[in-house]
Amino acid sequence: MDTDAKYMLEALKEAHVAAAEDEVPIGAVVVCRGKVIAKGHNMTERLHDPTAHAEMIAITAACEAMGGKYLNDCSLYVTVEPCPMCAAAMNWAQLGRLVYGASDPKRGYSLFSPSLLHPKTEVVSGVDSEECSKTVSDYFKAKR
Amino acid sequence: MDTDAKYMLEALKEAHVAAAEDEVPIGAVVVCRGKVIAKGHNMTERLHDPTAHAEMIAITAACEAMGGKYLNDCSLYVTVEPCPMCAAAMNWAQLGRLVYGASDPKRGYSLFSPSLLHPKTEVVSGVDSEECSKTVSDYFKAKR
Repeated sequence: MDTDAKYMLEALKEAHVAAAEDEVPIGAVVVCRGKVIAKGHNMTERLHDPTAHAEMIAITAACEAMGGKYLNDCSLYVTVEPCPMCAAAMNWAQLGRLVYGASDPKRGYSLFSPSLLHPKTEVVSGVDSEECSKTVSDYFKAKR
Repeated sequence: MDTDAKYMLEALKEAHVAAAEDEVPIGAVVVCRGKVIAKGHNMTERLHDPTAHAEMIAITAACEAMGGKYLNDCSLYVTVEPCPMCAAAMNWAQLGRLVYGASDPKRGYSLFSPSLLHPKTEVVSGVDSEECSKTVSDYFKAKR
């Protein structure tokens, strides 16, 4: 298994934690020099907080771990394409690399403007996208 | 003094608290039915957290005060035009009304897309903009 697939599996584990807590199952991890330094999953329902997306939680935790507000040397893995809020947060953090699984044709940042991200952030999409997408669709099917 | 000017003064007080803590001086308050329910000021340096903008802190605190993740009946006052991250957070919160002071021609959300905000959010700009702008420029002058 390649490195991106390996870390995406970690992000998927976080997504399943969210599902178990009855949250829309999206998960994220931040990796720096071969080490997972932060994890997050969607907690908007539990915290009654619309800003508590997996990526926001992971960015805040990663900055805490790094002791600074920049993540130039880090990769963030997230199961679903970030929304504009999360993409703009990655811009402020000057994230080195963004890897996401499924695209989000309704709420993804790329619908608005790719320039929401920092110009230096490398982007890789479609890693394990079927599993990432299925995790979300299974959740909504079960809710019906 | 009209209502918007009155609450913008409260947001300016928050900006001055930020300046005293050596943070870029931006402040925000959230008002619901004539009552300030949340306040926030920029804390990105102290928390080493690029997401700790005045508006994000105020939105999270307002949702906690309301016990829910929507702010339809609320107005958010902020001294400077929100960035895309904060505008998109207001979208998720379905904010009723956004009132800001100074425009931000470098980082303001309107540079990217006005549709980062929720379509139902009413926007008022330019309230006490000179004082809001001066608060930021005085801070950077003193830093030089």
